[in-house]
Amino acid sequence: MTQPATAQRTLNVALGDRSYPIHIGSGLLDDPQALTPYLAGKQVMVVTNETVAPLYLEALCAHLPSDVDVRTVILPDGEQYKTIEQVSRIWDALLEAGFNRRCTLVALGGGVIGDMVGYAAASYQRGVAFIQVPTTLLSQVDSSVGGKTGVNHPLGKNMIGAFWQPKAVLIDIATLASLPARELSAGLAEVIKYGLIRDEPFLSWLEDNMAALRHISPEAIIEAIARSCQIKADIVADDETEQGVRAHLNLGHTFGHAIEAHQGYGNWLHGEAVGAGMALAATLSQQLGFISGADLTRAQAVIESAGLPLAAPTDMQSDDFLTRMRLDKKNVDAKLRLVLLHAIGNACIDDTTSEEVLRALLDSYPRL
Amino acid sequence: MTQPATAQRTLNVALGDRSYPIHIGSGLLDDPQALTPYLAGKQVMVVTNETVAPLYLEALCAHLPSDVDVRTVILPDGEQYKTIEQVSRIWDALLEAGFNRRCTLVALGGGVIGDMVGYAAASYQRGVAFIQVPTTLLSQVDSSVGGKTGVNHPLGKNMIGAFWQPKAVLIDIATLASLPARELSAGLAEVIKYGLIRDEPFLSWLEDNMAALRHISPEAIIEAIARSCQIKADIVADDETEQGVRAHLNLGHTFGHAIEAHQGYGNWLHGEAVGAGMALAATLSQQLGFISGADLTRAQAVIESAGLPLAAPTDMQSDDFLTRMRLDKKNVDAKLRLVLLHAIGNACIDDTTSEEVLRALLDSYPRL
Repeated sequence: MTQPATAQRTLNVALGDRSYPIHIGSGLLDDPQALTPYLAGKQVMVVTNETVAPLYLEALCAHLPSDVDVRTVILPDGEQYKTIEQVSRIWDALLEAGFNRRCTLVALGGGVIGDMVGYAAASYQRGVAFIQVPTTLLSQVDSSVGGKTGVNHPLGKNMIGAFWQPKAVLIDIATLASLPARELSAGLAEVIKYGLIRDEPFLSWLEDNMAALRHISPEAIIEAIARSCQIKADIVADDETEQGVRAHLNLGHTFGHAIEAHQGYGNWLHGEAVGAGMALAATLSQQLGFISGADLTRAQAVIESAGLPLAAPTDMQSDDFLTRMRLDKKNVDAKLRLVLLHAIGNACIDDTTSEEVLRALLDSYPRL
Repeated sequence: MTQPATAQRTLNVALGDRSYPIHIGSGLLDDPQALTPYLAGKQVMVVTNETVAPLYLEALCAHLPSDVDVRTVILPDGEQYKTIEQVSRIWDALLEAGFNRRCTLVALGGGVIGDMVGYAAASYQRGVAFIQVPTTLLSQVDSSVGGKTGVNHPLGKNMIGAFWQPKAVLIDIATLASLPARELSAGLAEVIKYGLIRDEPFLSWLEDNMAALRHISPEAIIEAIARSCQIKADIVADDETEQGVRAHLNLGHTFGHAIEAHQGYGNWLHGEAVGAGMALAATLSQQLGFISGADLTRAQAVIESAGLPLAAPTDMQSDDFLTRMRLDKKNVDAKLRLVLLHAIGNACIDDTTSEEVLRALLDSYPRL
C-alpha cells in the first residue's frame, strides 16, 4: 500500500437518495480500501480500454477483496468506439458471467469509458451499481459529476443514453502522469469553463496557478479538480435533468460540438474544441455588449495559457458551423439557444441572437 | 367521432412527479381528444407492429392535431423481435426525422411493442415522453402499469431495460374484438393473479364473471381491467423499483418463465405459462401447509375456467425447471426465491424451500 503523497479530499454530490462521494487524492488505486465500501455485492465487472488496461487494470483488480468474483472487459480506445455495439459487449460479458442485480460495474478510463459503462449499468437488469475511476483530467472534472451516460449514434453525439448516478467516484491524480500534455490541456478547458460561468475568484486562482497545473503539481491539481467538481455538483444538484441552469455547463460546447463533428471526432480533442468554442462565445458576448473588451481579453488569455486554441479550424466555413449548430439538443422548436457570458463568472442563456448576427461573427472570426 | 359505448374509467398511478392517468373505455382510438393532452411537443413517432398497423394505425394518426409532425415505425410482430436491434430502428427513425427532446413516442400494440417503445423513449436523448396504447388484454392489465421497459438478450428475457413511466395510458377495449381467444385467456391469467395475490373479493368477482369476460362484455372487461390496474398501481406506488412487495406480482412467473424459455418463446404464450406457473405455486403453497386443499382447488378452478392450462409441458423434466429457475432475477446470491400464497388474496416471498422439496413437487406434478 502506497502512502498518499498529498492530502485526500472528499466532496459529496447531493442528490437525495442518489447522493454519492467523490474522493480525490494521489495513490487511491493502490489503496485496498478505496473501492470496497461501494460494492453492491460480490460480483464486480471492471471495464477499461486497451490504452488504460496495461497501466492500471492489474493494480485495481488486485486490491479488490478476495471473495469477490472479478471479471474484466477491455474495449478499444477512442470516441469512434462509443457505440451501442460496444455497450452490448459489456452486457454480453455480464450475462455470460451470470451476474445479477447486485453486481457492480467499475469504469476505469476516460470519458468514453465512463459514459459507456454508466449506460451499460443504467440498462442492465433495469439498473445496477457502478463506480467511476476516471483517469483523464477531462473525465475527472467533467463526466465524474452529473450522471450523464450514453453513446453516440451515426447521426449525433450522445444521442442514446440515460441519467444514472454512480455509487462513488475515485479520482487518483497519479493517473495524470501517463496523460499526454495535449490531453491535459483539453481537460483544463473544462476547468476554465467553471471559472467563466460561475466563479470569478476561481478563474483568478487559475490565472495564478496555470503553470503549476500544466506541470501537474499535486496540490494545485487536487484543488482545481475539487473546485471544478464542487461547482458542477452544485449546478447538478439544482437541476439534475437539465431543465434550466445546468445548460450553463455547455459554454463553448455548441460551437465546440460543431468543430468536433466537422473535423471528425478525435482530430480536434473535445477540450480543444471547447477552448475555441468558449473564445467564440466570449467574442459574441462582447459584440452583444454583455462583457467588456477587457473581459474578452482576459477570457482569451486564460484559454491560451492552458495550451488551447482560440481560433477556429482553417477549413471550416460559417455554414459548416450553422448547419451543425441548428441540430443542437438545447434548441427548442428551431430556435438557436447559446450559452454566453454576462460577466466573467456569470453565464446566461441567449435565444435572441439571429443567424445573421452569428454568421457575421463567424465570417470575421480568425481561423488557425 | 364515435360515441363511447360504455362509461369511461380513469385511474391515477401515483408516483409523485412521474404520476400519470390510465383511461379505460370503448372507442378511445376514435376520440380526437384522447392523445392530444399528453403530447410533449409537436413531434410524434407512432411505433406499432405489422399485425396491429393495418387495424388501428391510420385511425390513431388521423386524430392527432394537424400541426403535429407525425412519423411511424412498423416493426415485425413477435417476442423474438424484442431486441436491441429493433429498438435501434426506433432511434434511427427519430434521428432521421430530426426529433428533439420534446418529441413523444406512442406505443400502439401489445406488451412487446410497449416494452420496446418505453425503452427507446427512456434512452433517446436521455429520456423523452411516451404514451402507451396497449391493444391486448395482457398488456392492458400488466405492462401499462409499472414503468418496466426493455428488451430480451440471447442469454435472458428482459435483461436490458429501464424503469421509465409513460405520460398516459389509453386502453381502448374495442381493440380486444380483434384479439384471438387464446390471447384473451392469456391476459386473464394476469387478471386472476391480482385476485390471488392481493384481493380475495376480486377473485370471487372473477369467478362470477368469467363467462362475461371470455365473451368480452364491455362492462365486465372494463371492471376487470380497472381493478387489475388499480391493484398493480397500488403495489408499484409502494415499491417502484421492486425492492420488496412488488415481487408479489411475479406469482407464477418463476415457473412460467422456465416454461416459456424451455418451450421456446411464442410456443406457450406468456399468460399460459403463468397460468400453469400459478397452479404450481398454489400446489407448493398447499404442500407447505400455507393454504388448504379447498383453497388450492379454488385457485385451480378459476385458472382452468379462464381457458388456461394447469399442467406443465409434457416434455419438460424437473431438471429443465430447476436449471432455469436458478437464473431468476429475484434470486439473491445463489438462493431460490419463490412467490407463494399464504391465503387466497395474500401472497408471500419464500426463500426457505430447498431444491429437494421443489424437485419432489415437480417430479410428481401432472404433465399435459
